[in-house]
Amino acid sequence: MKIYDISMEITHDMMVYKNREEKRPHLKTSRDFTTGSVYESIITMDLHTGTHMDAPLHMMQGGDTIDRQDLSKTIVKCKVLDVTKAQKSVSKKHLENKDIQKGDFILLKTRNSFEDVFNVEFIYLDKEGAQYLKEKEVIGVGIDALGIERAQSNHDTHHTLMKADILIIEGLVLKDVEEGEYTLIALPLKIKGGEASPVRAVLIQGNL
Amino acid sequence: MKIYDISMEITHDMMVYKNREEKRPHLKTSRDFTTGSVYESIITMDLHTGTHMDAPLHMMQGGDTIDRQDLSKTIVKCKVLDVTKAQKSVSKKHLENKDIQKGDFILLKTRNSFEDVFNVEFIYLDKEGAQYLKEKEVIGVGIDALGIERAQSNHDTHHTLMKADILIIEGLVLKDVEEGEYTLIALPLKIKGGEASPVRAVLIQGNL
Repeated sequence: MKIYDISMEITHDMMVYKNREEKRPHLKTSRDFTTGSVYESIITMDLHTGTHMDAPLHMMQGGDTIDRQDLSKTIVKCKVLDVTKAQKSVSKKHLENKDIQKGDFILLKTRNSFEDVFNVEFIYLDKEGAQYLKEKEVIGVGIDALGIERAQSNHDTHHTLMKADILIIEGLVLKDVEEGEYTLIALPLKIKGGEASPVRAVLIQGNL
Repeated sequence: MKIYDISMEITHDMMVYKNREEKRPHLKTSRDFTTGSVYESIITMDLHTGTHMDAPLHMMQGGDTIDRQDLSKTIVKCKVLDVTKAQKSVSKKHLENKDIQKGDFILLKTRNSFEDVFNVEFIYLDKEGAQYLKEKEVIGVGIDALGIERAQSNHDTHHTLMKADILIIEGLVLKDVEEGEYTLIALPLKIKGGEASPVRAVLIQGNL
């Protein structure tokens, strides 16, 4: 089997949403070898740091939290779709010619995968694209941007997916992954009451 | 396939090592629906919170960090061993009658699994037990306590395992898991320079 690590490195200087300083993680050493025999640290980070999974609470009042996520949807067969031709957003027209079946977990590889700094005009999944995936009855969607939508005052993409119980993973690193079928592993931390969680996401090719 | 969630819930009131207040995670809401249309939080937590994986840096100056962990050792066949008979520590004598082979990832199910509060006299893997597992050439050891050792001023168990490149997972929840063979998934977050990482650990029974 081959493992593709599709996760961002978590560090203070990483790419963060809209380059907001308050989104930067901080790692603080609490013990080290100058005073003792162990090394320990404490991390402070936004739950949407790097590669992460959203829970419905992120966008829906009273929505479900990440600790209640059904794990059977986070260890699943998935399809990586090459939509690098999309110039502004991934829409229905970029998805119609792809083999998308009921129950699929779809990962969208866009031009974002080739950018190292935050681009305010990142490629996103637009409302029509989200609606199309909903109609196809997919169980999850991942994207190689820190957001699955932008420039939507009503958060249509998030709401369309969340209301249909479709999982959302943001911040994937798909640069080195070809279009095709894989097993996705993307387990959220069991953060009680959290509206999201960083995940160490990987793709497996071949049998475990 | 059946998934066993073997991870602790991360919350302020969870069990923490030696009940130290500074070990308690804090989840702080940074945005909510009273002022906007999204809900977001920031977590502050020790890297050894709940179910977690240690990297060599935790106990060895200049040791490797968690972001460099070989992921092929974190998605592996494993054996859960029932050592609930051990009264103080898991030692060679508790392991000798078990089927332990080169390359195994061993999870130790002890009496700790049935305790809800931190017990300063938790069952640990002692020096002889660690030495025995090293001789058996296992690739990893997990335990259902927040530490794999205690009362060892020289940290013999950690050092024996780490020097042999044997992975360590602490804080597993094995109460509902029977002795037997499973697939373990325990991927650390890619925290640059981290000496550990919380993991969402699961066991899989059957084929993916």
